[in-house]
Amino acid sequence: MTGNFTFHNPTKLYFGEEAIENLSKELENYGNKVMLVYGGGSIKRNGIYEAVKKELEKAGKTVVELGGVMPNPTIDKVREGMRMAKEEAVDFILAVGGGSTIDYCKAVAGSTYCEADPWEYYFNEWGEMTCRWIPVGCVLTMAGTGSEMNSGSVISNHSENRKKFYYFRNPDFAILNPVYTYTVPQYQTVAGIYDIMSHILEQYLSGNDDNTSDYISEGLMRSLIVSSRKVLVNPEDYEARSNIMWTATWALNGLIECGKPTDWMVHMLGQAVAAYTDATHGHTLSAVSGAYYRLLISRSEDAVKKFCLLAQNVWDVRPEGKSAKEVALEGLERMEEWMRSLGMAMNITDCGADESMLEGIADACPINESGYVVLSRADVIDVLRKSL
Amino acid sequence: MTGNFTFHNPTKLYFGEEAIENLSKELENYGNKVMLVYGGGSIKRNGIYEAVKKELEKAGKTVVELGGVMPNPTIDKVREGMRMAKEEAVDFILAVGGGSTIDYCKAVAGSTYCEADPWEYYFNEWGEMTCRWIPVGCVLTMAGTGSEMNSGSVISNHSENRKKFYYFRNPDFAILNPVYTYTVPQYQTVAGIYDIMSHILEQYLSGNDDNTSDYISEGLMRSLIVSSRKVLVNPEDYEARSNIMWTATWALNGLIECGKPTDWMVHMLGQAVAAYTDATHGHTLSAVSGAYYRLLISRSEDAVKKFCLLAQNVWDVRPEGKSAKEVALEGLERMEEWMRSLGMAMNITDCGADESMLEGIADACPINESGYVVLSRADVIDVLRKSL
Repeated sequence: MTGNFTFHNPTKLYFGEEAIENLSKELENYGNKVMLVYGGGSIKRNGIYEAVKKELEKAGKTVVELGGVMPNPTIDKVREGMRMAKEEAVDFILAVGGGSTIDYCKAVAGSTYCEADPWEYYFNEWGEMTCRWIPVGCVLTMAGTGSEMNSGSVISNHSENRKKFYYFRNPDFAILNPVYTYTVPQYQTVAGIYDIMSHILEQYLSGNDDNTSDYISEGLMRSLIVSSRKVLVNPEDYEARSNIMWTATWALNGLIECGKPTDWMVHMLGQAVAAYTDATHGHTLSAVSGAYYRLLISRSEDAVKKFCLLAQNVWDVRPEGKSAKEVALEGLERMEEWMRSLGMAMNITDCGADESMLEGIADACPINESGYVVLSRADVIDVLRKSL
Repeated sequence: MTGNFTFHNPTKLYFGEEAIENLSKELENYGNKVMLVYGGGSIKRNGIYEAVKKELEKAGKTVVELGGVMPNPTIDKVREGMRMAKEEAVDFILAVGGGSTIDYCKAVAGSTYCEADPWEYYFNEWGEMTCRWIPVGCVLTMAGTGSEMNSGSVISNHSENRKKFYYFRNPDFAILNPVYTYTVPQYQTVAGIYDIMSHILEQYLSGNDDNTSDYISEGLMRSLIVSSRKVLVNPEDYEARSNIMWTATWALNGLIECGKPTDWMVHMLGQAVAAYTDATHGHTLSAVSGAYYRLLISRSEDAVKKFCLLAQNVWDVRPEGKSAKEVALEGLERMEEWMRSLGMAMNITDCGADESMLEGIADACPINESGYVVLSRADVIDVLRKSL
């Protein structure tokens, strides 16, 4: 472990088929007026909405509802939520949905009582907010972003072609019932799975020390791969769905970045693509991964070493008689084979991008400097072009 | 993941060479009177005591000191601490030491304002305490028990030859500086390392489903094994000491037991041995492990399967051309080879036990029923005899 760091993650997780039964009791800790937030309305078709409403009723809460939170939620929609939260003087925000809905609720919770317009701090990446916070809880219906146990929030601004990130606060609690993810369509399920894999890799593929965090990451990846294969065969495999949901949470709650640098360039590239195309997050990540990882392997000895560990410890590549680079590339090829088996987008053309957008996407892509290679603008264009 | 469970661990961890610098700021959250608790006084020889006192002074605290907490802390010593905590009306208890000191501080923190004598609830394993709690923080000086991020406390009663466990509350925060463990003698260092390994195995060696928790456990074990070998060569290897410290914390903070049954019979057996011999905890665990694990492998198909995974994923045993039992046993042999290389006690005779104590030790050994095999009393005697 390198450097000094703090780990503190107080989110309370209720996990399992009966996890929802804890909701009414948890809500006793908060005021009377609850803002219930959800997405496109699938929760009204699969029974989750009814189960949540029953718990809200049991807790005796007054409920105002805000639906229609879109994937890649927009800053305009955040402003709508802020108006409602203020007018209704809500005491608590309950997110029922996936990462988009939870990210959105954090934005509303942290922005309603702020002077500044929220896009100002998203865009400028201002430090810690000190405005009054409306507490947030969540009922998770999709596995992927890890938003249920972290403070992050990603919001899109279509008029500026930007998708930006900001740290608010963690949800106080999260209800995780793997059964709720049975009805997630396969395209979204696999997007979530690759999002999880990408979160792990962004933290794993960096640094050159021997670090417990990387061993935990290897375990999470192995588990994810095994369960992803099962869920493709049977979307109602509880064991697989539960492992995927749990892996998602622990892939991005601070644990596996402890004591090490992180990269996050696949996310920067993918989010820039999504800002132009509004494509599904996980698929924008898979679409740029191959070209980016090959650039790392071609430029950095430390990257080769780490990809070798990935190849051997996660993808079961045998190293005998092969050069380090061959082992690294064989691991990457096995990963791409797995990505194709999931049905991931393997290029940004499939995400709706084309040659004419490359300069604009590069403009929207911030450069992180903590990974194995610091990309130049030409590198970004090169990776994007190879990803077409 | 099986069943319904809750994960909630709000302990704040400050990790790294400068972690102590957070202490004075953390202490601002508590009242003026701090009870500073430590063990045999080694902290006065290695500079940790001075560093802590400086922070207490910086925070402007009034300090009362209680030293002399022994390994396997006794219920009599707990009563002494309770008297001091009450007479001095302390607002906060700061544990500076290893697991014994932290376990002890939890006992004092939870018992001072209780009507019942603490041995009553340790001995009878009463449920959640509702007495007033004195908040606890800790500065860790030994890696092993994980007490810094859990609610457990183990206390010994020599007059009854019993060593018992009770759940209080988590420390609010912990300061983890790997450098503080450089001066821990090798006998204690390896005892801590095997304690960590045993914590992981107690949670790993149970259940028969495919569970993310087990994959995380495998990662933790792999990391621990690599770092344990380095620290034997160089006790001041920061990378190794930091990984061992971090592994210890995550081996017993609730994470790797999520969604699965656990066993804990090695701890029941080892604690019963320690109640008779006062031997070092980690060495009592290693002394009984081999015989107990061979019993599991000889009696349970599920155990064989799990020991096979352990052998292949942690001890790098190749399975080709071998029966499952052979793979399982080869893994166990590799583990025992590693234990011997650490200098662990490999039998209870080395811990000070003899044939005449076996019936008494068996009396002091509770039987858990959630592992692969439920031991009869004859089994307990058999395991102990084979461990002589």
